[in-house]
Amino acid sequence: MKWLSDPIEKPDVHFASLARQHQKKLTKPQGSLGQLEILAIRLAAMQQTKKPVLNRVWVSVFAADHGIAVENVSAYPQSVTVDMVKNFSAKGAAVNVLSKFIRAHFEAIDVGLLQTLDLPHLIVDKLSQGTANFLNRPAMNIDQLEHALNAGRNAASRAVSKKSHLFIGGEMGIGNTSSATAMICALLKENPKVLTGAGTGLSEDAIKHKSNLIKQALAKHRKNLGTPLEVLQYLGGSEIAALVGAYIFAAQNKLPVLVDGFIATTAALLAVRINPSVGRWFFYAHKSEEKGHQAVLEELNARPLLNLSMHLGEASGAIVAVPLFQMACKLHNDMATFEQAKITTK
Amino acid sequence: MKWLSDPIEKPDVHFASLARQHQKKLTKPQGSLGQLEILAIRLAAMQQTKKPVLNRVWVSVFAADHGIAVENVSAYPQSVTVDMVKNFSAKGAAVNVLSKFIRAHFEAIDVGLLQTLDLPHLIVDKLSQGTANFLNRPAMNIDQLEHALNAGRNAASRAVSKKSHLFIGGEMGIGNTSSATAMICALLKENPKVLTGAGTGLSEDAIKHKSNLIKQALAKHRKNLGTPLEVLQYLGGSEIAALVGAYIFAAQNKLPVLVDGFIATTAALLAVRINPSVGRWFFYAHKSEEKGHQAVLEELNARPLLNLSMHLGEASGAIVAVPLFQMACKLHNDMATFEQAKITTK
Repeated sequence: MKWLSDPIEKPDVHFASLARQHQKKLTKPQGSLGQLEILAIRLAAMQQTKKPVLNRVWVSVFAADHGIAVENVSAYPQSVTVDMVKNFSAKGAAVNVLSKFIRAHFEAIDVGLLQTLDLPHLIVDKLSQGTANFLNRPAMNIDQLEHALNAGRNAASRAVSKKSHLFIGGEMGIGNTSSATAMICALLKENPKVLTGAGTGLSEDAIKHKSNLIKQALAKHRKNLGTPLEVLQYLGGSEIAALVGAYIFAAQNKLPVLVDGFIATTAALLAVRINPSVGRWFFYAHKSEEKGHQAVLEELNARPLLNLSMHLGEASGAIVAVPLFQMACKLHNDMATFEQAKITTK
Repeated sequence: MKWLSDPIEKPDVHFASLARQHQKKLTKPQGSLGQLEILAIRLAAMQQTKKPVLNRVWVSVFAADHGIAVENVSAYPQSVTVDMVKNFSAKGAAVNVLSKFIRAHFEAIDVGLLQTLDLPHLIVDKLSQGTANFLNRPAMNIDQLEHALNAGRNAASRAVSKKSHLFIGGEMGIGNTSSATAMICALLKENPKVLTGAGTGLSEDAIKHKSNLIKQALAKHRKNLGTPLEVLQYLGGSEIAALVGAYIFAAQNKLPVLVDGFIATTAALLAVRINPSVGRWFFYAHKSEEKGHQAVLEELNARPLLNLSMHLGEASGAIVAVPLFQMACKLHNDMATFEQAKITTK
């Protein structure tokens, strides 16, 4: 897993500066495009160009089962993980509809489903069928962790090889808000009561149950949560590890990353803790309704672009934000300057 | 101006109910698409259909000069109004780039520029060259007001005749944040100190100057601000009146309206005060950085979709929100149901 610490370059400050200057020349009040100006400037720096573009978007959705799912921590049965992967393959899920709308490349990757499926558009890249129940055991052994991180790297590598302009990672795994909540409690040293949320739609009582289980798990593994990789191994999931690996490899290859909601942002935090420079390549798409999300965003000092009360996962919130990047690029590249439009501003 | 009070139908609750039921059947946790579900449901009700669509977007940008501009209330000289209209005609402005991106029909309408221009893509529909300085006189006489309201109606009528799915109104007019701020102070009975903002980019001192002028104007006209139409006549601008007329005519013809930023929302508030049922046909695109916007949004009980720190006007914030509607429709129409995907959720 040594590659995780390989260096990550900074986006090019020279091109950031050129883009910032260019924005000031465009026929609009200074700063009046708000976040869209920042997107264009950051993309220009990342792409080392005067004219940033965002046409080729890559969407990898990682799916895996969670041992913790047997503890009644989700509003849905564990079988929904596999069912939804079938739905991805049949192009019926939200992520399919949205990927088609923005003309993104979409792939689903089984990084640890309980069943092994032979389906169109499904990549299988796994070492085991589901994680262990982290209430009793580490969720993964070291080999499983390493394989999942590498599965993420493999996906980002495919995206890099196709010269993608943006990498979006999504996840599917019944039980994974329990896993992510346990991890952020460990990373932020916070009480599960404060950060445990409804996931796919739990009642108040069920949230209490989930919160208590997470508290137990944190107590059980407390001596093994000293590093972010340990947190990921003991409390994580294969799809979350895959996101971590994908994010780090993308950044190492100068591929900008658009981070989705709660689970994805938890993976982003893990990635930053493992290799702090990775954050320079992150954009944050949206604030999810899931309770713990705000705390993770704050820890990352992230300002997400959207706040639409979404909490669906599977990369959906990130894809919804993509047109903002595309419009930001178009505005940056195609608007007239004051000089071109012969406008005197004084 | 009697047509302003003509009745406005409600969106169809039957189709809203069908759409709400349909959303519950789609392969996602209940409510997890957040605002996108609400957009699809509201559009279904407005279009009286099971499958809402949003392909044909109509953008009308109204431009006019303001008498108040001679009082140094803008960071830009008054000539920029005409210059920007030339820029619209040459397709160099933000609204042009954005309209092209979403494939909207775009038109600019001179409803009261100081100059009369003969330019491609520019419609001239005005009675006078600019408004009077509302510090000294009513901004418009009754005929000017009526003409501007009708110019808006004419634009919305063109949109209706082309079977548009969404009407977006934009504005251009140096000085118009002063006019809009004066009107919201009159409508909300608020102190100009509290609501006066930077417009296109004023210094703190210049904002104080602007706020003082607005206070003077409110005092001068205080006996003539009893109705929303009086507020519009005495303190408004032709492009703002055109927005009011356009919004009301659109709603009377069941054409959904997407309201842009501060100026447009002020027009929306005027429209609601004139004909309260119009609000049922409004969507609010974004929260602008302009100081007074939040207060107007709150008065309208509006939750805007975006908050990207934009403050450009000319319909730009509204167009940026359009892909959200399109994705909301696609998700509503194209996602698989649990039944279709054969997913057991219990």
